[in-house]
Amino acid sequence: MPARLSSSSASVSAAHGRGHSTVLSDPMTGEPTGHHDIDASALIIEENKTLREPPPSSSLVFGHSFADHMLAVNWNGATGWAAPRIQPYGPLTLDPSSVIFHYAPSLFEGMKAYKDVEGRVRLFRPDMNMKRMNTSAERMALPTFSGKELTKLIAKLVSLDSNWIPSEPGYSLYIRPTLIGTQAALGVHPANDALLFVISSPVGPYYKTGFKPVALEADPSLVRAWPGGVGQYKLGANYGPGIRVQMEAAKRGYQQNLWLFGEEHWLTEVGTMNLFVALKRDDGSTELVTPPLNGTILPGVTRDSILGLARDHVSKKAPIEGLPDNLVVSEREINMGEIIKASEKGSLIEMFGAGTAAIVSPVDRVGFKGRDIQIPAGEEGAGPIAKAMLKSITDIQLGRVNHPWSVLVEDLL
Amino acid sequence: MPARLSSSSASVSAAHGRGHSTVLSDPMTGEPTGHHDIDASALIIEENKTLREPPPSSSLVFGHSFADHMLAVNWNGATGWAAPRIQPYGPLTLDPSSVIFHYAPSLFEGMKAYKDVEGRVRLFRPDMNMKRMNTSAERMALPTFSGKELTKLIAKLVSLDSNWIPSEPGYSLYIRPTLIGTQAALGVHPANDALLFVISSPVGPYYKTGFKPVALEADPSLVRAWPGGVGQYKLGANYGPGIRVQMEAAKRGYQQNLWLFGEEHWLTEVGTMNLFVALKRDDGSTELVTPPLNGTILPGVTRDSILGLARDHVSKKAPIEGLPDNLVVSEREINMGEIIKASEKGSLIEMFGAGTAAIVSPVDRVGFKGRDIQIPAGEEGAGPIAKAMLKSITDIQLGRVNHPWSVLVEDLL
Repeated sequence: MPARLSSSSASVSAAHGRGHSTVLSDPMTGEPTGHHDIDASALIIEENKTLREPPPSSSLVFGHSFADHMLAVNWNGATGWAAPRIQPYGPLTLDPSSVIFHYAPSLFEGMKAYKDVEGRVRLFRPDMNMKRMNTSAERMALPTFSGKELTKLIAKLVSLDSNWIPSEPGYSLYIRPTLIGTQAALGVHPANDALLFVISSPVGPYYKTGFKPVALEADPSLVRAWPGGVGQYKLGANYGPGIRVQMEAAKRGYQQNLWLFGEEHWLTEVGTMNLFVALKRDDGSTELVTPPLNGTILPGVTRDSILGLARDHVSKKAPIEGLPDNLVVSEREINMGEIIKASEKGSLIEMFGAGTAAIVSPVDRVGFKGRDIQIPAGEEGAGPIAKAMLKSITDIQLGRVNHPWSVLVEDLL
Repeated sequence: MPARLSSSSASVSAAHGRGHSTVLSDPMTGEPTGHHDIDASALIIEENKTLREPPPSSSLVFGHSFADHMLAVNWNGATGWAAPRIQPYGPLTLDPSSVIFHYAPSLFEGMKAYKDVEGRVRLFRPDMNMKRMNTSAERMALPTFSGKELTKLIAKLVSLDSNWIPSEPGYSLYIRPTLIGTQAALGVHPANDALLFVISSPVGPYYKTGFKPVALEADPSLVRAWPGGVGQYKLGANYGPGIRVQMEAAKRGYQQNLWLFGEEHWLTEVGTMNLFVALKRDDGSTELVTPPLNGTILPGVTRDSILGLARDHVSKKAPIEGLPDNLVVSEREINMGEIIKASEKGSLIEMFGAGTAAIVSPVDRVGFKGRDIQIPAGEEGAGPIAKAMLKSITDIQLGRVNHPWSVLVEDLL
């Protein structure tokens, strides 16, 4: 069922590629609006006078401590994007009628900054986050912007707070760009005021002491996203409703949900991650399957990276140690019937989630209709594909290998 | 497709009916938590020292001006609900990592306070709003509370700001109870901190100079809600995604969307309102149809009121002037195929939206698959059922007739 709204997404790519232009075009008509785009050269920096000491890396809890500065860019419907500001990390002050409190006009990205072996700061595929953020903004009737300009501003922010990037391998600075509607009025209309802000938080590796595979509950009565809905956008509205569902699964001993769709029980996502399944085929090859971007699946950066790396392995452009020689990469639908059959045959060899926080998250059990399907997770708690992908992506993120996905922050300033 | 989560909604009714109890029970286990419930007797009032002049009623725009005071009640996972505060209307100050900005943990209600013919202040069915707000809170993993206690606090707030309730007929004070998660941490978890606040805004009648029927666009590729999703809860997450869709419809000359569901094109809601259709049947009777509460439909207070009044008319308990004698009230599925057939036969006699803001909103045109279906809206812009329902509900709201749905604020203090 093609959604008519998606046809206008071309203007988002245009917005992303606009580079230094500071005049926006209307995402609906393509005509110039006379509004200002985000302009990194107009940046105003107010340095934090009371710098704090980053907490010891060993004590880090995801998203609980924040670096000294934040980036804030205001937008107004009459004038466009205001001059960007880097300012001390601190609270937002908003009218209680602000639309963000009432109708969930919010979207976000998750990125990370890494210190490489030479101590230089790196980002991983920031263009992907900027493109998706603009796509989300357009869908949420919030303003779009030049992704290149915002990337420069994020580079500046991260440079200023580079002492907050832990240097231990596997540690990083999690970056959270967020865009919210802020207009102070209760009508359900496009917001005339918006705020884009970026905060950052030092984080540790997801698996400090070896992999911990998770158990998933697959309850077909609960649905994350649907055709014609907004599941493919990184909107706040897609996350809040999953919290209660995860609490219920946890009561029954499952850490996360395996989100199914439809009467055929198609697999879609795992908690807040994309999903990968590996199957042994009769011809001896291994098939790595992930559901296609059909409108209900978030186009994850890690998902895309795993697909790209796996395909480069298959084409022998960049073989990856530990991946099967005879690998087939499939973006295709897969349902619980196929999972159960593969499990019974012994051909279900691996399952893992993929996302920015964990990179890969191995799965060793799926609860479905009152019974548990066991999934091999190896002696180390992760199968060979998850392990190889984690290593390949981490090597790129940390600059251990040279790859265009890893961007030096100094080259963006 | 029954959603397993809905089975625990019984605890919400319990919470609502808890009355003066100040110890909460866990909505999942039913066990006492030792946490404090909302307690109206603990109210702290900080009066606004700089009272403003309410704007002239003729200049009112929905949700743009706000009364002098607001109610705020903080909640924390360790202790429960804090002492309620009535304080000067003013901004909220929240950490930029607060979950409300990232994962849309937000829900709200829409209520109105009216001045009756004797100048006394009245609410309309506040118990319905409290019940629904608790249902939404439970689904969003936000704290539930005693609806009776919150109703008392709202009564107190409205009394204090009673000069903000316009006395002209059709005018009222729109009341917006809102509940948001406020915890300052980026994990996708149940919020450990929350804020319930209530603001109010003087509003005029939806139709100042006669009815203005609206045109709807019915695009089957766009879907508001899905079985197993959250369409039946009054969550912010259900509203933001509709804004862009309405903008697109407006470009094509339609004021609102008619939300369809499924390949059979079932009618569900109109913009942010419930939907009613009136059909002439072969036996000469008139059938008033609204889609049933199947999990994708918001259980609207106005929807419920129209059904109740229509049924009391049918049973002759309380006949309503202007309604057909031979009326049949149906909560049943109705699809575009039936609408088109009825239109061709001349038996499609009325369509209207129903919600707190407009009470009824007549529809005179539906665009579907490239053609327009015309719907009679009478010389005055509204059909006989919409007109009769508007009058009946307004008469109750303004205390022109005695009815248990209309509650005197002085009886709640």
